[in-house]
Amino acid sequence: MIKERLARLRREMEKRNIAVYLVPTADYHESEYVGEHFKARKYITGFTGSAGTAVVTRTEAGLWTDARYFLQAAGQLEGSGVTLYRMGEEGVPTLFEYLRSSLKEGEVLGFDGRVVNYALGRRLREIAEEKHGALAVEEDLVGLIWEDRPPLPPAKVFVLEEKYAGRSAAEKLADVRAVMAEKGADVHLLTSLYDIAWLLNVRGNDIDYVPVVLSYLALTKTECLWFVREEVLTPAVREHLAALGVETRPYDDFYAWAAGLEGVSVLLDPKVCNYRLCSSLSESVKVVSAPNPSALMKSIKNDTEAENTRRAHVKDAVAVCKFIHWVQKNVGKIPMSELSAAEYLADRRAEQEGFVELSFDTICAYGPHAAIMHYAPTPETDVPLQPEGFLLVDSGGHYLEGTTDITRTFTLGPVTEEMKRHFTMALRSHIDLAMVRFLYGCSGLNLDVVAREPLWQLGLDYKHGTGHGVGYLLNVHEGPNGFRWRESPERSEGHVLEAGMITTDEPGFYLEGRYGIRHESELLCRKGEKNEFGQFMYFEDITYVPIDLAAVIPEELTAPERRWLNDYHARVYELIGPRLDDEERAWLRDATRPI
Amino acid sequence: MIKERLARLRREMEKRNIAVYLVPTADYHESEYVGEHFKARKYITGFTGSAGTAVVTRTEAGLWTDARYFLQAAGQLEGSGVTLYRMGEEGVPTLFEYLRSSLKEGEVLGFDGRVVNYALGRRLREIAEEKHGALAVEEDLVGLIWEDRPPLPPAKVFVLEEKYAGRSAAEKLADVRAVMAEKGADVHLLTSLYDIAWLLNVRGNDIDYVPVVLSYLALTKTECLWFVREEVLTPAVREHLAALGVETRPYDDFYAWAAGLEGVSVLLDPKVCNYRLCSSLSESVKVVSAPNPSALMKSIKNDTEAENTRRAHVKDAVAVCKFIHWVQKNVGKIPMSELSAAEYLADRRAEQEGFVELSFDTICAYGPHAAIMHYAPTPETDVPLQPEGFLLVDSGGHYLEGTTDITRTFTLGPVTEEMKRHFTMALRSHIDLAMVRFLYGCSGLNLDVVAREPLWQLGLDYKHGTGHGVGYLLNVHEGPNGFRWRESPERSEGHVLEAGMITTDEPGFYLEGRYGIRHESELLCRKGEKNEFGQFMYFEDITYVPIDLAAVIPEELTAPERRWLNDYHARVYELIGPRLDDEERAWLRDATRPI
Repeated sequence: MIKERLARLRREMEKRNIAVYLVPTADYHESEYVGEHFKARKYITGFTGSAGTAVVTRTEAGLWTDARYFLQAAGQLEGSGVTLYRMGEEGVPTLFEYLRSSLKEGEVLGFDGRVVNYALGRRLREIAEEKHGALAVEEDLVGLIWEDRPPLPPAKVFVLEEKYAGRSAAEKLADVRAVMAEKGADVHLLTSLYDIAWLLNVRGNDIDYVPVVLSYLALTKTECLWFVREEVLTPAVREHLAALGVETRPYDDFYAWAAGLEGVSVLLDPKVCNYRLCSSLSESVKVVSAPNPSALMKSIKNDTEAENTRRAHVKDAVAVCKFIHWVQKNVGKIPMSELSAAEYLADRRAEQEGFVELSFDTICAYGPHAAIMHYAPTPETDVPLQPEGFLLVDSGGHYLEGTTDITRTFTLGPVTEEMKRHFTMALRSHIDLAMVRFLYGCSGLNLDVVAREPLWQLGLDYKHGTGHGVGYLLNVHEGPNGFRWRESPERSEGHVLEAGMITTDEPGFYLEGRYGIRHESELLCRKGEKNEFGQFMYFEDITYVPIDLAAVIPEELTAPERRWLNDYHARVYELIGPRLDDEERAWLRDATRPI
Repeated sequence: MIKERLARLRREMEKRNIAVYLVPTADYHESEYVGEHFKARKYITGFTGSAGTAVVTRTEAGLWTDARYFLQAAGQLEGSGVTLYRMGEEGVPTLFEYLRSSLKEGEVLGFDGRVVNYALGRRLREIAEEKHGALAVEEDLVGLIWEDRPPLPPAKVFVLEEKYAGRSAAEKLADVRAVMAEKGADVHLLTSLYDIAWLLNVRGNDIDYVPVVLSYLALTKTECLWFVREEVLTPAVREHLAALGVETRPYDDFYAWAAGLEGVSVLLDPKVCNYRLCSSLSESVKVVSAPNPSALMKSIKNDTEAENTRRAHVKDAVAVCKFIHWVQKNVGKIPMSELSAAEYLADRRAEQEGFVELSFDTICAYGPHAAIMHYAPTPETDVPLQPEGFLLVDSGGHYLEGTTDITRTFTLGPVTEEMKRHFTMALRSHIDLAMVRFLYGCSGLNLDVVAREPLWQLGLDYKHGTGHGVGYLLNVHEGPNGFRWRESPERSEGHVLEAGMITTDEPGFYLEGRYGIRHESELLCRKGEKNEFGQFMYFEDITYVPIDLAAVIPEELTAPERRWLNDYHARVYELIGPRLDDEERAWLRDATRPI
């Protein structure tokens, strides 16, 4: 089947004199998750993983993916005629190296310019130019041959009321226009779905786990054009848009409209906008390259959003507490697996008022599975839970009151002293960061070491960032804040920590083949004392689920760490206890006892 | 006298049609300290402080200086006709604002282009260009009218033997040429005196506290031209230079030589090179702007330099221990003041074998004086020491084996509980940074918060960096390493911490009008374990003087902090005890007792 699809793709390439065609994993909006309609790379290779890039030449086809997917990809590509390129392995050419060697003098490199961001597109153009060749970016060749392509999702848009959003869309538009004026921009082009949803106070359901609306936005000093499919708009939404002065245009008309701009100054973020948009702008357009103004604005939660998010976390904690209690009570007594436990948790969340959907695919990882980064159970990998060892559950929900992301690692039965030591060590990391006080002006770059030091002292580390920003009923991974000690130009997470930003605190420890531990809560950045030294800042922990004391070695915590943990548990019991049934409450009282 | 000097300067300005003349505090080499020959700003205003910029117009004269000098400058400028502009005070125009308003359309702004770095010079040029005027930078007008100008210093150059430098100048020249080749540079122009001294393995005595040689260097692939005054060279130095293939040229010929370069690629650091040099290069020259390659090289001490520096610190610690013992034993019994104590300390250092000179002006600050940043006693401010409170002494020496910089704050008698709490808090900062372990790739930007957190937890801070690099028998403030949480584009101290770098660890706490506390040692960065997580790094504390236990509250230290302090004190006693007399050794034994 794949061979036949590749043959049809090659015929289309042949017609257009395209020698090499590239198919990445992306939609037109640089979204973190990709809807079914956009899974062209899966269609053309058969590989279903969430990350990978396919390259098709006249005679070869290859797939580049990372270590998480080596096994899965090897299986799925077998007999397809697609070669697996294991990224990062010695002797394996990188994607760019392969393109350089396979593209010959004067040949054409093709891709759908909408699914490649401008930064990557420029690198590909350089490769074509080195060969005195050219790019072809106007057509989606996989789309041409794709029978039964899943349609764009039919989910209706809804208006996020001001009691949830805390600020009217009219005010937000005025704020963005003020930044445009500052930067001397006549037009602002916005392709990021998160930013559009935030700006217009609308949500949809076009991408799994992210309640956004496939669309583009063009903002001028006086006009606001929303390029969106008419069929997803309801009368209520139309009324909302009319009151805002937003005109709608067909989704597909965006590129032609943008290409028609002449002699104006256009604000856009080339890290987010796709290659086709950027390369189709007229030469007379002056591009003002800058982060989307809404990116910073939406990261700073207003008082309503902050208060709502606390409420969402209370609901979420009720669900997670019920879940942990249920697992610990029943494991070894009734059949239970990673998948069934994850389903039980999803059901508890769904019971909560205002629940919208899960905010990402639940990581419910037992034993050695927890040491595999990004593991999420599938029917193929699912294992039964036994009354021993650790279960790591990293999960979250979208509520009208905000988005949650929480990880708790808890015991299902006996654990060794070594496991407790590692659990306590990672807990120290978690607490030390949560306790930090700092002068305004610090970023996650400054503070990350506070979390890592307990592990670094022992020559250990965790190979992931310590935390990421969280959206409000939007993407669970939101910039521009985060905790990471190494600056990374592709990531946007080094911003000064502003009051109102929400960032996860999720250090961990992983022993390959044995177990994994991670403690994750969300921290709301707040203003503290202002004095002669400056504005002090601190974090409010807004996640309310106990840390499993069965795995904590109290003597290995410092006095302030122990005090913090006891205070935290007292707050958890106070907030969550009244919302549980008697049996659960008794469990919670014990789980939050002072140590 | 100042009025008469200003009148003569204005006559020279008039002759050249210069409307506004600027006189900063600098030499031709962006040195941190300025020799007498270069103190033109002091000559033209009468103000003797270490920082300030004078501006002279046809009718006005002004001096810009910072808060440290407001009192002193007000006194010294009285009756001079020079207006004091208090930098940072509300309503006081900045230097640039003043220049913008006083320079009229088409007028000429003048300064000696050798005492203004290229970055500042470009800003001044912009101001002149805004007014369609011009710059005049070729002449030193203060020099023209300056009778009895102190000559350039006559200090002889000496060769730093390889047993001290650890690496031959020939090898260093080859290393720098390798970087030139990498960057495609034909010529490297070096004006930084520290870099020249390091590169040629020579030292001099042309600037107080910095054993360098006034000179310029031009390096090509095959030639090395040293622009230096012939009279400071000895036969031994000539022999050293001849063996290296270094040709000497007159100091003053450098600009003409550089201006004669045509069609070559020149590597230079525009943050360090002066305006006259940069602006006199031919248009056919391609400038490769980059930090001087020697800046990073000299910051990474080789094994010989590191071992020598440990030895220098042993000698230095003997001097400081003798001093502290003497002060504590005799205060209240014999007359003693900040200045006389500082002299006693200087004498103890001078007794040490291989001592060259002090590495900076000793800060010996008693009581409230210690809360004044950069305070150094003068006959006017000197106060007697009493048997109570804290004495803060920040001092250091240059030895053939390296440069030291140490601060100890110690009790002269009773101190309050509050003073002890602050002393212990700042000590925690000092110890926590010294104890840190980290993955290779961290810079001081990442680690600074470790030192600040004990103060930040209490809403307190110290308004200075936590640490700076230290040269080897060179500048006591050396880049590109340092500890500072906020990035600052003018400073060069955010480099990744490399094994061999030496950085001070000097947090403090200051209560205006009452007292100041600072604990400073030098930390040598070293490689620790390398494992699956990366290369771990740690610091070796190479300063060997006890922390005054009379002001430490043991219960306020964590167990690891207390352990660190006891281990540190045991090492101090072991290394320094054998080098003291019996009475001093008994004192040291008590001062280093475990707590």
